Amino acid sequence: MIRAKVIGAGGYGGVGIIELLSSHPGAKLAALVDVTDVGSPISRLYPHLTGFCDMPILDPADAKAQEPVDVVFTSTPDGVGMKLAPQILASGAKLIDYSGDFRFNSVDSYAEYASRIGRETQHASPNLLTEAVYGIAELHRGQINEQRRLVGNPGCFAVSCILGLTPAVRSGLVVPDSIICDCKTGVSGAGKKPAATFHYPARYDHMNVYKLAGHQHVCEIERELSLQAGKPVAVTFTAQVVPVCRGIMSCLYGQLTRDVSADELMRVYREFYTGSPFVRLFDRSAAIGSMHVRGTNFCNLIVDVDTRTRKLRVISHIDNLMKGQAGSALQNMNLLFGMPENAGLMRSGMYP
Amino acid sequence: MIRAKVIGAGGYGGVGIIELLSSHPGAKLAALVDVTDVGSPISRLYPHLTGFCDMPILDPADAKAQEPVDVVFTSTPDGVGMKLAPQILASGAKLIDYSGDFRFNSVDSYAEYASRIGRETQHASPNLLTEAVYGIAELHRGQINEQRRLVGNPGCFAVSCILGLTPAVRSGLVVPDSIICDCKTGVSGAGKKPAATFHYPARYDHMNVYKLAGHQHVCEIERELSLQAGKPVAVTFTAQVVPVCRGIMSCLYGQLTRDVSADELMRVYREFYTGSPFVRLFDRSAAIGSMHVRGTNFCNLIVDVDTRTRKLRVISHIDNLMKGQAGSALQNMNLLFGMPENAGLMRSGMYP
Amino acid sequence: MIRAKVIGAGGYGGVGIIELLSSHPGAKLAALVDVTDVGSPISRLYPHLTGFCDMPILDPADAKAQEPVDVVFTSTPDGVGMKLAPQILASGAKLIDYSGDFRFNSVDSYAEYASRIGRETQHASPNLLTEAVYGIAELHRGQINEQRRLVGNPGCFAVSCILGLTPAVRSGLVVPDSIICDCKTGVSGAGKKPAATFHYPARYDHMNVYKLAGHQHVCEIERELSLQAGKPVAVTFTAQVVPVCRGIMSCLYGQLTRDVSADELMRVYREFYTGSPFVRLFDRSAAIGSMHVRGTNFCNLIVDVDTRTRKLRVISHIDNLMKGQAGSALQNMNLLFGMPENAGLMRSGMYP
Amino acid sequence: MIRAKVIGAGGYGGVGIIELLSSHPGAKLAALVDVTDVGSPISRLYPHLTGFCDMPILDPADAKAQEPVDVVFTSTPDGVGMKLAPQILASGAKLIDYSGDFRFNSVDSYAEYASRIGRETQHASPNLLTEAVYGIAELHRGQINEQRRLVGNPGCFAVSCILGLTPAVRSGLVVPDSIICDCKTGVSGAGKKPAATFHYPARYDHMNVYKLAGHQHVCEIERELSLQAGKPVAVTFTAQVVPVCRGIMSCLYGQLTRDVSADELMRVYREFYTGSPFVRLFDRSAAIGSMHVRGTNFCNLIVDVDTRTRKLRVISHIDNLMKGQAGSALQNMNLLFGMPENAGLMRSGMYP
Repeated sequence: MIRAKVIGAGGYGGVGIIELLSSHPGAKLAALVDVTDVGSPISRLYPHLTGFCDMPILDPADAKAQEPVDVVFTSTPDGVGMKLAPQILASGAKLIDYSGDFRFNSVDSYAEYASRIGRETQHASPNLLTEAVYGIAELHRGQINEQRRLVGNPGCFAVSCILGLTPAVRSGLVVPDSIICDCKTGVSGAGKKPAATFHYPARYDHMNVYKLAGHQHVCEIERELSLQAGKPVAVTFTAQVVPVCRGIMSCLYGQLTRDVSADELMRVYREFYTGSPFVRLFDRSAAIGSMHVRGTNFCNLIVDVDTRTRKLRVISHIDNLMKGQAGSALQNMNLLFGMPENAGLMRSGMYP
Repeated sequence: MIRAKVIGAGGYGGVGIIELLSSHPGAKLAALVDVTDVGSPISRLYPHLTGFCDMPILDPADAKAQEPVDVVFTSTPDGVGMKLAPQILASGAKLIDYSGDFRFNSVDSYAEYASRIGRETQHASPNLLTEAVYGIAELHRGQINEQRRLVGNPGCFAVSCILGLTPAVRSGLVVPDSIICDCKTGVSGAGKKPAATFHYPARYDHMNVYKLAGHQHVCEIERELSLQAGKPVAVTFTAQVVPVCRGIMSCLYGQLTRDVSADELMRVYREFYTGSPFVRLFDRSAAIGSMHVRGTNFCNLIVDVDTRTRKLRVISHIDNLMKGQAGSALQNMNLLFGMPENAGLMRSGMYP
Repeated sequence: MIRAKVIGAGGYGGVGIIELLSSHPGAKLAALVDVTDVGSPISRLYPHLTGFCDMPILDPADAKAQEPVDVVFTSTPDGVGMKLAPQILASGAKLIDYSGDFRFNSVDSYAEYASRIGRETQHASPNLLTEAVYGIAELHRGQINEQRRLVGNPGCFAVSCILGLTPAVRSGLVVPDSIICDCKTGVSGAGKKPAATFHYPARYDHMNVYKLAGHQHVCEIERELSLQAGKPVAVTFTAQVVPVCRGIMSCLYGQLTRDVSADELMRVYREFYTGSPFVRLFDRSAAIGSMHVRGTNFCNLIVDVDTRTRKLRVISHIDNLMKGQAGSALQNMNLLFGMPENAGLMRSGMYP
Repeated sequence: MIRAKVIGAGGYGGVGIIELLSSHPGAKLAALVDVTDVGSPISRLYPHLTGFCDMPILDPADAKAQEPVDVVFTSTPDGVGMKLAPQILASGAKLIDYSGDFRFNSVDSYAEYASRIGRETQHASPNLLTEAVYGIAELHRGQINEQRRLVGNPGCFAVSCILGLTPAVRSGLVVPDSIICDCKTGVSGAGKKPAATFHYPARYDHMNVYKLAGHQHVCEIERELSLQAGKPVAVTFTAQVVPVCRGIMSCLYGQLTRDVSADELMRVYREFYTGSPFVRLFDRSAAIGSMHVRGTNFCNLIVDVDTRTRKLRVISHIDNLMKGQAGSALQNMNLLFGMPENAGLMRSGMYP
């Protein structure tokens, strides 16, 4: 059994991977680490885990937190994973980092990202950047393998947009600077920490845009799409919060470079996602929405063309905490250890 | 006091105007008409009205439903208002119709609308079309006056998009065929009738797109924007439902025809909406959302430019049942009778 | 016009009275005071107030906060009102305090309350206690008059339970120690401050009991019911939070002292509430719930008997922020100044 | 592998057991039957099942619907199971019926139930009543075994109340006619069919009582508690709906027959539920609620005493669609076939 350690275990990103690992056929939890609630069983913070995972939260400095493991998940903010990475890798463990620290595999592209979100542009572990792989398995499955030891797990909005746009962008069907990503996220995307804007009375019947001046995921999306397109891609990105708990619904638009029918577009997508068990394709007649991916690792795409205005229109649905975070992380772990990509991830979710 | 009759009183459009008229300084309810729940006091259907309006619902054929009034609101589906209009106008009453029947003031434009939504293209009262005015007061205030007797009240999505786009479109700042309207509506927009897709367990944590193949409001938006632009405008329109009760949030995009700063754009909007008490303008830093217009007749606009991609980006917030329906109807009534445009409409809403 | 000052203006209790006073026919806002967000217009905190109340929040020490007014609302926690009261009253203003400070008109009963909730039992202004009146107008209307200058506004759960039980308790129909108050509150009852338990993702689909060991409103309920009964009354009280924003639904039970029919009970309630415009009575067949009092000052009571088990069963609905807080406060203000009890309070609310 | 057929597959009760059986280690779905949506793959009705269960819905008369299976789940209304039972049992299959048809194992007690809910008192298969067992495994585990072929699956409110009260009632700690069950259910308890009262806009911010005149589960609760107590027990029962999707929270009260401490009461409960993997016990300090059992088969009980008024107070949390329906059904199936009671049911649920 693969032994896994979760750093940042007490947040939503932590509890998500704990839930998944608790029933994984080939891995088990070895240690939970966080800087708050140290000493508490995780099931006191999250009572639904009672009887499933009652391990205590360890201080990072605790000796038990240092025992050797096979894989570490750092469910931590930007800037933490890059500091912890050298020691983790030196211990022989693989590392899957949830933040932006390892999503850019060159010093320059990291610096651009950092500068756009107002962070220090110097990476703390620059030499590790080139060995990191961007953890969207559907695009980089071949590079996420047993030889790899470092994965930059993607951002939730980025997963949603990149999976929805890549086949069209790679095929040259979209004018590169015409792309609009109109993205609505559920509230759990903001994490566990209470804040005025996520206080129930202020949120239950409320929808709004935020960070119009610039969202941290834009750079990540543009970089990956540019790599896929082989030329620079710029997107207009609008982040919105709506009162659902889990789910991202991204409406993705782009000017088509030529007349394309919805059927032809669907063929392009179908071909691209052959062999990707977690991408499900639908046409415009499908009655699907966020509840149909809730609690699962699936990305449901509606592939559509507005022929009147010659525009690509793709609707991308994921669960921001699963395919957008812990689910992708587990999918990456499976690949890093040569296990079936979908091990421990074949969950239908529940309805309603 | 102006005497008002509401036809279709039992639906959300009806109860909305009943609430407003119950406290209007210059108008009062004279009769409530509907084809279901005949004989019930409206306060049995809507117990919050107990003591405010306990009038019974009358059958359309009831003699009391025929007594003369000064204004009639037809909160009825497409096809009803056009049949009732001749008799209503002949009785000396003015008519404000909630449906698409009188939003198009020519036989041809009505026919195009009707054909796009799959209805009979022949209008039942074609001779009345030319005297109807499209009831967005901010655009047609001058024509909604005491001489006028027939108003086609606008659709909720249409109000939201047209108010958000008109100043830019009129000024020639937007490429006419580049416009995207990404619109999210609360569930009350679907009306009172239960349906599988609005059943609480299927809806509470669910967001989805619908009618990708074509929404009835697209034609209305395109026609008005074309009139405003003086040339044909085509839009890509995506309707979405999110689990809020009241509210439409439209994200409106368009390619700018030249470099425009957010400040310049704001000046254009500010000038255009001078004298319009129900449009409030905000810049991209504003922390506003749907709750800030809930229960009110306001349209809150965030006016923004994405300079990286040279795109207009306007976020338009209305309450679909107020500015998107009953509120606009009352605003139109005020103008039709020479009263202050905001009479009975100065409500802040409540928070939270 | 009565000039009103609100201390604690930035919280939900503050914004509630601001909304009401903004459209009151005989009173107007003179000053808003708080210790946070000093200098901000209230409409920046609460954008729905834009154009309705844009007054800045003043520091308590600000000279403008000291200008004379006719009435002060202290929307502040326990312990604040009792310290401010002497100076406010000395300035000639009347005081309506939202906390528990003036709900008990004797030193002893205050001390019992304070000890049960773990506060210092010594009152800061003991000499004022005897001139305070408990601000449930339906019970103490005669004492809330122009001669009175100090009102202890009731707690939200207490209003709900006391209005639901008083007629039965006064009539000796209920065994005094058999009463159970099973009370569900909306989340807004917790106020504006974000907390883990009111964070949207933790709350949206969640219901729970809390403070089983003792809730601050129990003492208030028992004291008032004991006064009404003329003998000691003890209640079992269970506070619950459910994911609605506004509303308290209290299910109130008690062993009947003799066989009583629902009709007889209804007559007792009807007689008691004659002349109380904000109490509406319903029988068990009524299809009413929390939305029917939302945004209003009404208390809707379903008066019922379970004849199989000889139990009183009353369901009491209020809006915790209106009849449970700001609405009762305004009702009390009206009485203190000899105005109609319902001035500025005749709102139906909106639906849906 | 046990072959299972689900009759009434298209409703929430059906999809619940389909989700569970899709990942059960020892059983598999053999046929889905319903009278609506015949011919549709179940995954068209419930798109989250895509790839997990794409079997079509069969008409009851379809030959494929008649093929032999080992167990049948009838997720059907009262009156259906009793008509189908003879044929199902004759075919050699076991039957787990979701309705009230087999919850009462005598003609007389069924007749009392039927008369109280206004149904025909004559049972269609009276000779089968005596071999049916009431399917709360925690109480009747010994009788739900490989020799048994017929189970009356319990009602959701009944499970919640009976599990919460049985240890106290059996021990004689509660005055039999003093019990109050104040029960709040999530909306999914009403099933899949849209109705005015569960329409999102009418429900999202709404809580209310219903069926005050008598709820179908009262008789079921009283009968089982009377059997457990060895004497007649009558309860006052108040059903409420609150805007959560899944969950029942029952607050259960009773006069204690003697002074009992919370610790002593807890020992009674702990002893009774030893060996019951799905009952978790908590004291009054636990911060638990409905989300902590959502999507699981657990019943979480807070065991408490109000010593001031000498009352038992137990808070019982279940997921109405799991422990209240499909989960209990699967638990019963496991026992009927000699499998581990918790096979396929060890799910923690997800959070948030």
